[in-house]
Amino acid sequence: MQANFSIPPIATHLRSAIEQKINYKTKPLGALGRLEEVALQICHIQQTLAPSLQHPHLLVFAGDHGIAHEGVSAYPQKVTWQMVMNFLGGGAAINVFCKQHSIDLRVVDAGVNHDFPLDARGLIHNKIQKSTANFSKEPAMSIEQAETCIESASKIVKAIAKSGCNVIGFGEMGIANTSSAAMLMSVLCNFPIQKCVGRGTGLGDEALQHKLDVLSKALIKNGKPTSPLEVLAMYGGFEIAQMAGAILQAAACNMVVLIDGFIATSAYLIAQAIEPTVIEYCIFCHQSQEQGHTLLLEYLQAKPLLNLGMCLGEGTGVAVAYPIIQSAVNFVNEMASFESAGVSEKSV
Amino acid sequence: MQANFSIPPIATHLRSAIEQKINYKTKPLGALGRLEEVALQICHIQQTLAPSLQHPHLLVFAGDHGIAHEGVSAYPQKVTWQMVMNFLGGGAAINVFCKQHSIDLRVVDAGVNHDFPLDARGLIHNKIQKSTANFSKEPAMSIEQAETCIESASKIVKAIAKSGCNVIGFGEMGIANTSSAAMLMSVLCNFPIQKCVGRGTGLGDEALQHKLDVLSKALIKNGKPTSPLEVLAMYGGFEIAQMAGAILQAAACNMVVLIDGFIATSAYLIAQAIEPTVIEYCIFCHQSQEQGHTLLLEYLQAKPLLNLGMCLGEGTGVAVAYPIIQSAVNFVNEMASFESAGVSEKSV
Repeated sequence: MQANFSIPPIATHLRSAIEQKINYKTKPLGALGRLEEVALQICHIQQTLAPSLQHPHLLVFAGDHGIAHEGVSAYPQKVTWQMVMNFLGGGAAINVFCKQHSIDLRVVDAGVNHDFPLDARGLIHNKIQKSTANFSKEPAMSIEQAETCIESASKIVKAIAKSGCNVIGFGEMGIANTSSAAMLMSVLCNFPIQKCVGRGTGLGDEALQHKLDVLSKALIKNGKPTSPLEVLAMYGGFEIAQMAGAILQAAACNMVVLIDGFIATSAYLIAQAIEPTVIEYCIFCHQSQEQGHTLLLEYLQAKPLLNLGMCLGEGTGVAVAYPIIQSAVNFVNEMASFESAGVSEKSV
Repeated sequence: MQANFSIPPIATHLRSAIEQKINYKTKPLGALGRLEEVALQICHIQQTLAPSLQHPHLLVFAGDHGIAHEGVSAYPQKVTWQMVMNFLGGGAAINVFCKQHSIDLRVVDAGVNHDFPLDARGLIHNKIQKSTANFSKEPAMSIEQAETCIESASKIVKAIAKSGCNVIGFGEMGIANTSSAAMLMSVLCNFPIQKCVGRGTGLGDEALQHKLDVLSKALIKNGKPTSPLEVLAMYGGFEIAQMAGAILQAAACNMVVLIDGFIATSAYLIAQAIEPTVIEYCIFCHQSQEQGHTLLLEYLQAKPLLNLGMCLGEGTGVAVAYPIIQSAVNFVNEMASFESAGVSEKSV
């Protein structure tokens, strides 16, 4: 493993000071629920009693998958590049929500089966190759490619951190990537593949069974590698691998890291397997409707902020949850204390 | 009943056109989950394919409760007026969240046990009297007072609607008002009182048992009136009664109506009992941590947008959920369609 991430556990000596600041706000103890947990986490990440979210970014990693040729998705592969063009044109859901919350959106071509214009605005060219290999026949990528994904994505994140951004979320686009995510989940968490497979972009019952058959056979053929990098190379996607590197680097840069739905959580799994302390920097934003995600979040003991029944990817769960994370930061900074507001405290 | 609300069922002839617009956006069918349901509802309320949220308002109704003298709250009664001053000073949670989302916040003195300055900025004087009566001894208010609450609050909402606002949420402040809400819920839904009583602002086990004893005795003494107005007069609060009138008038004015947590839902119960069609205009924003709320929402078959473990009141659930409602409107207006973006549709 070339990439070397130094992600120290977060120092906790400020905990009682942060808790005291939160508890003395004009509200009953704990009455802001999850917002208080998020506030505590962000204060810890930033080692401050006055947290702030600066220049929020969302990176959408896009990549194609050889496994798409096995008919595991409801949409044709070309939708990956068409949707990338839609992102660049501003017409996708993630554009709308990023615009709403002033989140800087960038799209990364991690390995889309298409030649994009070199000067496409908002597109970061980081293509490993046009699509992974078909993992029902051979490993999706080489170990070297997996390493390149992690390293090159970490450079992208470093540059964004340098620009003054301290909060970043990740999304993805890649026809057939729920198949990749299901395989990663099955192997890394040791769940039976049928518990990890879902309808993706909307498969019917028959197509879902076919997807399960394809993935079950691939698992028997290729087995379960043991190191996270080998698992990633065998069953991953270029966008998933780059997302894993981006998550690791964002934590290493001391950023607040926002995790989206099923695919993003599978990338997180890889990141966590490489460096477990990454969890202290991550906020899980949305529980996807994709069936494997509920189980995966339980496995990670992660409590997502939202459960709005979405299953779109693109980082939409991150963008929709972002104002709630901002609310958590705002109440810490802006609410009065019992003392400053002259409000009486609890009497019984 | 003096107040007369004409709330017609919403016309549904646009349904297929709205659904088609939503379904042809560049996303798999249904992939935006609850956002799509909210979008459909708002398009229906506004009878349009191009919905918009104009001049959002949040009204916090504040009132005191005679039952507070029975020791059913963790905080002393004076916290009601102190928190009203905190709202006016901008230091409460609801101020922070309304400011974040440019929601116009107004505070209504529905019956606080305090004399506020007549020129207090942001305060609407609509005091019925200083606190309700103690419903463990006598009805909380007269039928005439309940009617006055509904009528006077409806005037406030009418004026706000006239100013160009088409989306409004309601919050409350009133020490001991979870007791009132629990009684309304128990009588109107016919649930045993112990299923409706919760810790409010943070009662311990012993104090919770005392609260339950007080409310159980009051229920035995005063019984279960049958008409919604009689129930409201017997066990309600001035802020709850005014909120009920405000909810009804907002629906009558064709506004999108945002319902907060446990107390606001008890006011909604009264409104619904008076005019059942009100439900078509309402969005339930947050499932409170207060134990009765889960059961109450199930009873109403209402699916709240958020479940962030908050139990603060003030309308904080509304304000924190507001950007998600805005996201629902934005995607309808701003996302590209498969055709306009040149994206291929589902192939299987």
